[in-house]
Amino acid sequence: MTPADNKGNFVRRVPAGDTREREVCAECGFIRYENPKVVAGSLVLEGPRILLCRRAIEPRIGFWTLPAGYMELGETAEDAARREAREEAEADIAIDRLFAVYSIPRIAQVQVMYLAHLKTAHVAPGIESQEVSFFGLDDVPWSELAFPSVRWALTQLKTLGDTTTFAPFANPPGERGDVV
Amino acid sequence: MTPADNKGNFVRRVPAGDTREREVCAECGFIRYENPKVVAGSLVLEGPRILLCRRAIEPRIGFWTLPAGYMELGETAEDAARREAREEAEADIAIDRLFAVYSIPRIAQVQVMYLAHLKTAHVAPGIESQEVSFFGLDDVPWSELAFPSVRWALTQLKTLGDTTTFAPFANPPGERGDVV
Repeated sequence: MTPADNKGNFVRRVPAGDTREREVCAECGFIRYENPKVVAGSLVLEGPRILLCRRAIEPRIGFWTLPAGYMELGETAEDAARREAREEAEADIAIDRLFAVYSIPRIAQVQVMYLAHLKTAHVAPGIESQEVSFFGLDDVPWSELAFPSVRWALTQLKTLGDTTTFAPFANPPGERGDVV
Repeated sequence: MTPADNKGNFVRRVPAGDTREREVCAECGFIRYENPKVVAGSLVLEGPRILLCRRAIEPRIGFWTLPAGYMELGETAEDAARREAREEAEADIAIDRLFAVYSIPRIAQVQVMYLAHLKTAHVAPGIESQEVSFFGLDDVPWSELAFPSVRWALTQLKTLGDTTTFAPFANPPGERGDVV
């Protein structure tokens, strides 16, 4: 192995004192605990319209998504949602409330999505976006959405109408984000 | 290094194509991406009373907590909350709705807490609990709670009264779960 491999040399076994198989490096003994990761993002509303970003990167390049991404150490989920809006859409947002928590077991993600609004009018594509735009909920490009959870969020948002007090959303019944 | 070391030999540097310092194993080149982890748990209600578990393990052995723990790969957050209630209190629970999402940046946790109820009457201490018991919200052992977020959840639950439709809770203003 050389550092260029960037992979380690992991084998699966149950470490002493544990009950689950973990990835253990056969060379250095490091235990790679793998747990789901948190994606934090936002539904940024401007009146009746919502901010979407057309992805400039894989996966799903060219498709529309909500500003969202992996939470980093030292952040709160709200911090991460604000940072992602800034990075992907140059948007300076204020978070209003939690909208939904989704789980996608297939890719080991928990997605924490907030309702938010712009603090200043400026938006522009960040380096990970080809284009950013506001869409009315009747004009969403449904066939060009990047991920199932983007569709869930926009569908659930449509059900709200003018309601401001609502229980947060979760995965739609029976849906686990599998891509068919 | 031998496997018994269980640690790898990590140095901090910015990998090619990244913008943040990461832990990189100087021997095998493995990049240890570190992101916050998800703790999933539940507020299990039986009428006006709530289930608490007295911890049999560190940290905070002997103090009272809500059934909760680290989410594993392949689970939804709801799956993890149900498993933890089973492991810590032998409780078979049904989840009613999301209660709160807390962030504790100091320990890189996102805590996803659900309202739930028992499907069967049985509860008993699991291996990580010394004792499990239901408490009325006026009888909570406030000075013997294990973690700040347990206090947040119980305090926020008290504010609800009979309300069933409410926006989910987050960290109380200004609180980040630091222990003073």
